[in-house]
Amino acid sequence: MKRIDWNALDEQGRSEALARPVQSRASELREGVSRIITEVRVRGDAALRELSAKYDRCALAALEVADDEFTAAEASLDPALKTAIREAAGRIETFHRAAALQPVGVDTAPGVRVECVLRPIQRVGLYVPAGSAPLPSTALMLGVPARIAGCREVVLCSPARADGRCDAAVLYAARLTGVHKVFKLGGAQAIAAMAYGTASVPKCDKLFGPGNAWVTEAKLQVSSEPDGAAIDMPAGPSEVLVIADVAANPAFVAADLLSQAEHGPDSQVILLSDSAALLDRVEHEVERQCAELPRAEIARQALAQSRLIAVASLAQAVEVSNRYAPEHLILQVTVPRRLLEGIACAGSVFLGAWTPESVGDYCSGSNHVLPTYGHARSYSGVSVASYQKQITVQELSADGLRGIGPCAATLAAAEQLEAHRRAVTLRLAELESMI
Amino acid sequence: MKRIDWNALDEQGRSEALARPVQSRASELREGVSRIITEVRVRGDAALRELSAKYDRCALAALEVADDEFTAAEASLDPALKTAIREAAGRIETFHRAAALQPVGVDTAPGVRVECVLRPIQRVGLYVPAGSAPLPSTALMLGVPARIAGCREVVLCSPARADGRCDAAVLYAARLTGVHKVFKLGGAQAIAAMAYGTASVPKCDKLFGPGNAWVTEAKLQVSSEPDGAAIDMPAGPSEVLVIADVAANPAFVAADLLSQAEHGPDSQVILLSDSAALLDRVEHEVERQCAELPRAEIARQALAQSRLIAVASLAQAVEVSNRYAPEHLILQVTVPRRLLEGIACAGSVFLGAWTPESVGDYCSGSNHVLPTYGHARSYSGVSVASYQKQITVQELSADGLRGIGPCAATLAAAEQLEAHRRAVTLRLAELESMI
Ligand SMILES: [Zn+2]
Ligand SMILES: [Zn+2]
Repeated sequence: MKRIDWNALDEQGRSEALARPVQSRASELREGVSRIITEVRVRGDAALRELSAKYDRCALAALEVADDEFTAAEASLDPALKTAIREAAGRIETFHRAAALQPVGVDTAPGVRVECVLRPIQRVGLYVPAGSAPLPSTALMLGVPARIAGCREVVLCSPARADGRCDAAVLYAARLTGVHKVFKLGGAQAIAAMAYGTASVPKCDKLFGPGNAWVTEAKLQVSSEPDGAAIDMPAGPSEVLVIADVAANPAFVAADLLSQAEHGPDSQVILLSDSAALLDRVEHEVERQCAELPRAEIARQALAQSRLIAVASLAQAVEVSNRYAPEHLILQVTVPRRLLEGIACAGSVFLGAWTPESVGDYCSGSNHVLPTYGHARSYSGVSVASYQKQITVQELSADGLRGIGPCAATLAAAEQLEAHRRAVTLRLAELESMI
Repeated sequence: MKRIDWNALDEQGRSEALARPVQSRASELREGVSRIITEVRVRGDAALRELSAKYDRCALAALEVADDEFTAAEASLDPALKTAIREAAGRIETFHRAAALQPVGVDTAPGVRVECVLRPIQRVGLYVPAGSAPLPSTALMLGVPARIAGCREVVLCSPARADGRCDAAVLYAARLTGVHKVFKLGGAQAIAAMAYGTASVPKCDKLFGPGNAWVTEAKLQVSSEPDGAAIDMPAGPSEVLVIADVAANPAFVAADLLSQAEHGPDSQVILLSDSAALLDRVEHEVERQCAELPRAEIARQALAQSRLIAVASLAQAVEVSNRYAPEHLILQVTVPRRLLEGIACAGSVFLGAWTPESVGDYCSGSNHVLPTYGHARSYSGVSVASYQKQITVQELSADGLRGIGPCAATLAAAEQLEAHRRAVTLRLAELESMI
């Protein structure tokens, strides 16, 4: 882990201290993904079968998971895991329902009613990766808000293992959240199938979920074509920033840093503290705990890029954090709410000693699909609103138009849009003639 | 105008009847825009001056609008126009404040507090085109929600005329809504400047606003680069779909179709009715009214592509409208609210005879920056939320972690993320030892 003194750095040094790994969208990746998308658009299901054989090393008869596969998956699962999945789904539902938008309406002038109504995006596509391990929690995080929003068709893709089956826990979670169709598809080909549709896979209006570089690039490409699909947000490697004071428990802080580091070799891990003693203790604890982990090798690679940064004060820590705009922000300080107000950019925030990031990943109820790579400056995590459109509605009475029509006519005239002006004045004249 | 009988069409005919003009992102456009972006990134303000000289035919000394230019602009404006701008801003503010998100919090389990807090996007860039006429209304639509959200720095670009000045009404509207800096920049170079920053122009986190093909392509390109900027939504030509029944006033319907048609030759105009007589009357009225318009030539080009579609019922009209997903949807029927419930996709909806689209463009209070080109299937119009991030926050008490920690640990184990599990169990052990 790199030890850095923030106040010993000049401006360029500070930028480097917070730099993320370059995401180049290498032309090789771009072109490879573009080829896959074209294949799927042109040859549909046949291309999907070939690409699955090539990349997921499985020969698929049916692309869609059949009913009896769901039943078998449920039967095969440890009851304790099923209980945990149901419990987590319940709390995710509680929070997402509480945070969901409500329709609103207001009279902006007498007889001028303006409203905002909500409508679900009709068809949505969820992507659940299955890289080093299955991710039933991601199926919950994507499926629960889709159901609350009321999307008419919810499709989920997750790559099959070599035996041609999807992970049982992912299938159980998908079914539990009311996903309508699950396909054994992964990678750029899954994204292409949901964006453009094939004989088997419905064309979706918006795509959600994390994924590797191929999935991410495919989402970017389909979202920039007018006939493609919208996406939840751009993606990058996962990251955590911890702000800890001298009173923080170094074992807890180290455990949180390691739970981020184990995600992958490119995971970003940053600790800020106004206490050199705390930084020392955490560094030592990280070493100690890391040795015991099954994924120690992955964690070590991430830790080699991680940074322990000494700051002058907690206020400065907040400044540095806002500049970085972390996906996960953990405030292990004595009065975390005192810092919260100053937090301008973060995906999700964890307050105090008893709130490890793990609970947000799984079951506090908040969503774990969050903006990474600095996108927390302008994006929010997935929520029910991500699955909805807010449609504005206006209704004027005759008096309403009498009141605000002249204002519209004046502005239309200034913008030299005469037909706009006449659409108002013609009606006003009709109202005059009716008196 | 093309007359079409929906029920005489097969599936392909229906697709063609609702087809929009192909947006090809021609490689010439892509490359031209990409070159401009590179120029601005590499050479900053010098490139901006050269590009403004070339495309806007104006030699700029300072890129930023100075204080005395704002003062002169205000002094030069017709008082009636200033009053209309202030009135419109007031109603836009009323609606946008009413529709703004509120922070929420809920206990998802005893001792498990989960909240959603709101933070403004720090730096935002607004684009106000100045093609055939100035658009002060767009400055209001972009500036008012930015101020309500509390964005720290609001930048606005609008191209200067050949005399090196920006439109007075745009400057007045910008100042009124609290925009911090206005730059005399247009086209792809304005977007590049706000996305990457130059010596004069601050780098912005998110860009908003309509524009021509170059602006649209530039927004798309900067939004797909990790170090670029987010954007409000993809764009396309403006469009209206009107559903009218036999009782509708054909002069009103024609006026609304024409106010859309005058926007540009590529404007999309569609009328659906279950009454052939109404279609006849509107067709005749459009001819009559069009002849009187100063922009008749533009309107006629748009009308050549427009469609009058006979449907079997109003229910079928709603189906067809949802399939098209119009930016603007006007319901000129006897009981418009009866249709509203079935509307699944639209940018903004106008109910009844006294609600011309013009009032939404200017001063009912709703936003006129709306999803076009079918993007209403997955995007919403601009709102205060477009300028904010929703950040989730969680805080567990010791008892809270005792309650939900085991659930997180079970899920972490299932996902083979041992460090995630230990971040929980380590704390639970500490709690045990404290008893
Ligand atoms: Zn994690
Ligand atoms: Zn208009």
